[in-house]
Amino acid sequence: MDYLSDERKKSDFDVEAMKVAWAGSIQEFQLSDRMAKLVANDPVFEKFTRPMLGRKELLKNTLRKSAHAWKLIIDLRLSEEEAKWLRLYVDEPAYTDLHWGMFIPAIEGQGTEEQKKKWLPLAKKMQIIGCYAQTELGHGSNVQGLETTATFDTRTDEFIMHSPTLTSSKWWPGGLGKLSTHAVVYARLIVGGQFHGVHGFIVQLRSLEDHSPLPGITVGDIGLKFGNGAYNTMDNGVLRFDHVRIPRNQMLMRVSQVTKEGKIMQSDVPRQLIYGTMVYVRQTIVADASKALSRAVCIATRYSAVRRQFGSRDGGPETQVIDYKTQQSRLFPLLASAYAFRFVSEWLKSLYLDVKQRLEANEFSTLPEAHACTAGLKSLTTTATADGIEECRKLCGGHGYLVSSGLPELFAVYIPACTYEGDNVVLMLQVARFLVKTVSELGHKKPVGTTAYMGRVASLMQKNSAVQTGKLIFMIKTQTCFLYVTNQ
Amino acid sequence: MDYLSDERKKSDFDVEAMKVAWAGSIQEFQLSDRMAKLVANDPVFEKFTRPMLGRKELLKNTLRKSAHAWKLIIDLRLSEEEAKWLRLYVDEPAYTDLHWGMFIPAIEGQGTEEQKKKWLPLAKKMQIIGCYAQTELGHGSNVQGLETTATFDTRTDEFIMHSPTLTSSKWWPGGLGKLSTHAVVYARLIVGGQFHGVHGFIVQLRSLEDHSPLPGITVGDIGLKFGNGAYNTMDNGVLRFDHVRIPRNQMLMRVSQVTKEGKIMQSDVPRQLIYGTMVYVRQTIVADASKALSRAVCIATRYSAVRRQFGSRDGGPETQVIDYKTQQSRLFPLLASAYAFRFVSEWLKSLYLDVKQRLEANEFSTLPEAHACTAGLKSLTTTATADGIEECRKLCGGHGYLVSSGLPELFAVYIPACTYEGDNVVLMLQVARFLVKTVSELGHKKPVGTTAYMGRVASLMQKNSAVQTGKLIFMIKTQTCFLYVTNQ
Repeated sequence: MDYLSDERKKSDFDVEAMKVAWAGSIQEFQLSDRMAKLVANDPVFEKFTRPMLGRKELLKNTLRKSAHAWKLIIDLRLSEEEAKWLRLYVDEPAYTDLHWGMFIPAIEGQGTEEQKKKWLPLAKKMQIIGCYAQTELGHGSNVQGLETTATFDTRTDEFIMHSPTLTSSKWWPGGLGKLSTHAVVYARLIVGGQFHGVHGFIVQLRSLEDHSPLPGITVGDIGLKFGNGAYNTMDNGVLRFDHVRIPRNQMLMRVSQVTKEGKIMQSDVPRQLIYGTMVYVRQTIVADASKALSRAVCIATRYSAVRRQFGSRDGGPETQVIDYKTQQSRLFPLLASAYAFRFVSEWLKSLYLDVKQRLEANEFSTLPEAHACTAGLKSLTTTATADGIEECRKLCGGHGYLVSSGLPELFAVYIPACTYEGDNVVLMLQVARFLVKTVSELGHKKPVGTTAYMGRVASLMQKNSAVQTGKLIFMIKTQTCFLYVTNQ
Repeated sequence: MDYLSDERKKSDFDVEAMKVAWAGSIQEFQLSDRMAKLVANDPVFEKFTRPMLGRKELLKNTLRKSAHAWKLIIDLRLSEEEAKWLRLYVDEPAYTDLHWGMFIPAIEGQGTEEQKKKWLPLAKKMQIIGCYAQTELGHGSNVQGLETTATFDTRTDEFIMHSPTLTSSKWWPGGLGKLSTHAVVYARLIVGGQFHGVHGFIVQLRSLEDHSPLPGITVGDIGLKFGNGAYNTMDNGVLRFDHVRIPRNQMLMRVSQVTKEGKIMQSDVPRQLIYGTMVYVRQTIVADASKALSRAVCIATRYSAVRRQFGSRDGGPETQVIDYKTQQSRLFPLLASAYAFRFVSEWLKSLYLDVKQRLEANEFSTLPEAHACTAGLKSLTTTATADGIEECRKLCGGHGYLVSSGLPELFAVYIPACTYEGDNVVLMLQVARFLVKTVSELGHKKPVGTTAYMGRVASLMQKNSAVQTGKLIFMIKTQTCFLYVTNQ
């Protein structure tokens, strides 16, 4: 008996309309659906055997998939949007994520026109493979504390990249361990013996002939990570420099420049642009949270409909576990959260577009509030999603502990989101600081966006609610709603 | 610079006394310490490479370690207590856990004198390897819903073991997949076409000559579980019977007997003995919770002392993250919980001994309360420990995501404790039911043990506390305290 189709028949909403609401528009639904089918029907992208592969075979498998995806993108002339969806459905952390998601955007955002003209065509044709080398063994959240140095040598017009301590080793960059040929390396700029802040530098790591590390460069893989397949398809790496020289024009100079005489110049490009990029990246993390949580909820919901336990009368079938209140009170808030995270990520996208327009017009007043919104929502949604996936696993009883349920791998591959791009606890402290600052400035500064209500606090305090009971209504068509439901 | 020894010097309690308090007595400390060193200094027990091994090599490695441990136990004439500690420090889920922890105790608890005389020597010399086949694909918590049948055939004086449906397949038993030769199988006893409850049966699964499955028996491994090494060293299995015949005297008959004429008899052994075993097993789970949580807390505490981030002044070292309140408020309650779980497990042990004595004297009045205590504490401590290990992992930032931190494997190997021996949510419902029943019976039944205060509810309600402020004092010497500290 097919319990699932029975359950599906009971739905009292328009499932096709919901698909479109989830995707954002009929066009976006069709695009993503087309790419999903392309991947699902291609045997190269099979992922069933992944958790059984040894580490070496895992990495080879990833290389095979990436190369095949790249071939498809070229052969089928896929747009960048289509390629993004294709990579998403391949559903495997890979060096290409960092190449397309961090290395190229770093050059686009921080490179001069000349630098973009030189490096982007190479990168976009994948004639070079890039990674993003920021985090060090000793420094994650405290970017200003990075220890790698880039010392300018006026005599040769070069920077000398160096790792002065063990803790200055670059540690974690995805794609670095085995595959990248180049990296954007963040280092302390030293000119004339003076420290001039942390900046990005394009550094070649490996030979384009035989892929061996260049002189002065020590590079390797940092070892196994949580889970069977999970992030072990990614070659997160360690990197050390022993006085490696690069030409001056490989410092990313859109914002700050070093002249060949060793002078530091600032362009009129606002530094705040970096925050714009942060808003963008964190908005995609919120969108990814909804995707990951919805997958876990989908597995747990289907299991709860099929699984029966207790309550049999007269030899009849037992009760579906989805009909138990203890199951519902744990599962349904997560289902609601997955939708809420989806729609709030759309709102964040519009917030980003607004911030971007304002930045281009040199208008920075809404940036702190936008930054606080994305920091807070990144922290909230990734924490809830990581915990929610594990809760879904427990909702599948013993079966959730098997890799074949899909949940252990989903958890293992998702949880770094609580740490990367801003540790969730550190981000919440930033939000708290912003809120306290906003309140303390109320007298002379008008609060904006989500904090605008604070400007009306005096009148709000005088209003009393006459509401006696409440009912939570979930509006699927108003995609801009910000709704977070918990069972606490 | 050795930051750890610096921190250790600051301790204001007697570390040696604490070791003894934790162990329970100086004798227990010395015993466990001797076994710890025996394992640590033996290269066969090396576990560093475990997460890197493929599944087949993992299982071979486990066999090698088990055989070596067995040889040591015999060669060194270790006591049962010493052998238990040795297996604990080998620190690897293995078929031997089920052989010693479930198969042998099941025969000891549910077998007749004759059955014990026949089977225990074989098992204790490991001439047979046993597992515990209760859970089925379709039934976990609902033991009464098990579908495997044991039908008595009076003509041949045999039981016919059969798996009538797909969902009746035995699913999960550790040691079943590849290694066990025998199993205690739980099945519906059918005599004369009538159902007479679920009982245990000793069934041979594999040939003692060539280890191949016996006729009518289909057996295999259920596949990968959460984590790299973790529980993948265990051959959890699937088992189906196609009308497999066993002699009548292989039903465990201490409580109920089937005569050769097909009559069901009850001995005067109280059924409540089974609950005594439950209390025992769950008490060991609470003790294990404290061990697992203390390992995680130990790693996170050491990391927090060594890791430095932000707060550098004048080029001096940054602040140790253990000095941040955000780190302390997450870490220290877990540290306190690890101690509290240790001491409450000692209290549970004394509760079990008390219950056992009473059962032997046919005194059952305290059993429901003891059962509720162990169910509640099993649920509370395993949930807090599973969440606590993951919190400790997050407290180590990105580094906690590396298998080399030890935390991913500890989490993956620990979390089944939330599901096995009573799902934590189901157990909490049982505790709630007990409490409600206790309250509803207050008029005519005197509440006992931890609920005794309910008998004084009238006088308690008239007392008002004059306390204005509170201070939590942690008494390490009164090992019977029940203390649970959270930061909520």
